[in-house]
Amino acid sequence: MSAITITAYDWVPDIAKGQVRDLRLRWALEEAGLPYKVELVAQGSQGEPANLKRQPFGQIPTMEQDGVTMFETGACVWRIAEQSEALLPSGRAERDACLSWVFAALNSVEPAAFMLGFLRFCEMEPARFGLKDAQTAKDMNPAAKGHFDQRLKRVAGALDGRSHLVAGRFTVADLMMTSVLVSAEKRGLMADHPEIAAYFELHASRPGYRKAIADQLATFAEHEAHYARG
Amino acid sequence: MSAITITAYDWVPDIAKGQVRDLRLRWALEEAGLPYKVELVAQGSQGEPANLKRQPFGQIPTMEQDGVTMFETGACVWRIAEQSEALLPSGRAERDACLSWVFAALNSVEPAAFMLGFLRFCEMEPARFGLKDAQTAKDMNPAAKGHFDQRLKRVAGALDGRSHLVAGRFTVADLMMTSVLVSAEKRGLMADHPEIAAYFELHASRPGYRKAIADQLATFAEHEAHYARG
Ligand SMILES: N[C@@H](CCC(=O)N[C@@H](CS)C(=O)NCC(=O)O)C(=O)O
Ligand SMILES: N[C@@H](CCC(=O)N[C@@H](CS)C(=O)NCC(=O)O)C(=O)O
Repeated sequence: MSAITITAYDWVPDIAKGQVRDLRLRWALEEAGLPYKVELVAQGSQGEPANLKRQPFGQIPTMEQDGVTMFETGACVWRIAEQSEALLPSGRAERDACLSWVFAALNSVEPAAFMLGFLRFCEMEPARFGLKDAQTAKDMNPAAKGHFDQRLKRVAGALDGRSHLVAGRFTVADLMMTSVLVSAEKRGLMADHPEIAAYFELHASRPGYRKAIADQLATFAEHEAHYARG
Repeated sequence: MSAITITAYDWVPDIAKGQVRDLRLRWALEEAGLPYKVELVAQGSQGEPANLKRQPFGQIPTMEQDGVTMFETGACVWRIAEQSEALLPSGRAERDACLSWVFAALNSVEPAAFMLGFLRFCEMEPARFGLKDAQTAKDMNPAAKGHFDQRLKRVAGALDGRSHLVAGRFTVADLMMTSVLVSAEKRGLMADHPEIAAYFELHASRPGYRKAIADQLATFAEHEAHYARG
């Protein structure tokens, strides 16, 4: 098994702590038991050519293995899963169901969560988004929340009282679904969805998730003094 | 090679014609040269148990092969691509780049397009989304458009004057990126992005895309009389 290096920020503002997306890769790598290194990207250097070269949107995370660099958490986590039965069962039907759910998390659930996050940023800094005040984003919020609620209801329907999306055991499908709910959980958006809240709690209490979060936060703490406004 | 069946609607309202997502699977299957059947889902039956069982969000398309059913266009198209070098080059680096770009199309570009589409629906039917008037969604539009523009700029930056995202040839990466731009193109949202508009035109003029669109529209035409208000 060849060495894996992922990228992550050295520091982020408090509002983002604990939900930066290198979390997904760290968690998957912990579950898979694959060793990895973390290369830190300095906060503020996102738009520099070296970053745009490996991640076209100037974001983190990326993953390098055998000299090949990938981007997008979906792609990286899927490749990690393919290297470990701990994340991906070997049966064809179960693998295909996992792939379907990984895309569902990222293309059916996360866009709804993303829209709510975008509205929140617009509410916090309206001028930066060309809005005259915070009210517009505030007024849009219930419609966006309604869409998000519909999505969560459908996920709850698919779970139908079970704790896992595929194969009756933890898989990459649960890892990705839990991951796309992290920001929603932080903002209390799961209050109307007790089954989803319980699903989230179950998987987010796994040792691999807890280690991933702890490692991410430890890095930020190390660099806090450098970035904190003096 | 075993038979493939995909699901598609028998009819949709004019506003959706030519951009319903079974297009992505039809196009991929045409490029791959794989034979397939289309099973029609009656418009309005989305929420029925049989539909929710194969697609948890009550949507189309789905894909069935060897008795295994998948959902999410990302998952289905990726599995089709894995069956054909026409969509997926054989080199490891190129395959990984394709996977990264398929997720980028669906998780970095489409959520931005989705938000614009959602605002447009809110503008058309504010009451249905719990909004007091069309103005709120209208006022949010420039901020959402700004985000979408940023994303397209980054894609243009990655293309850097080239016509293909990976390997200097058409791949599943271009198929998915072009696919997530279909709705934006219909709404004139690519006017400020001539490189992306040219990229879209190039790939959307492929015979496989044109056949996919023609087949989808022919089905709708067949059922028009049944659904048209009398
Ligand atoms: N679709 C991407 C999203 C990555 C992403 O949103 N990264 C954030 C951190 S969580 C970032 O780098 N943001 C900085 C920026 O956009 O400038 C993925 O899943 O990898
Ligand atoms: N993320 C899904 C989206 C599928 C989707 O949006 N399907 C639409 C047609 S283009 C649909 O069935 N809409 C009906 C509904 O949501 O009730 C995918 O990529 O497959």
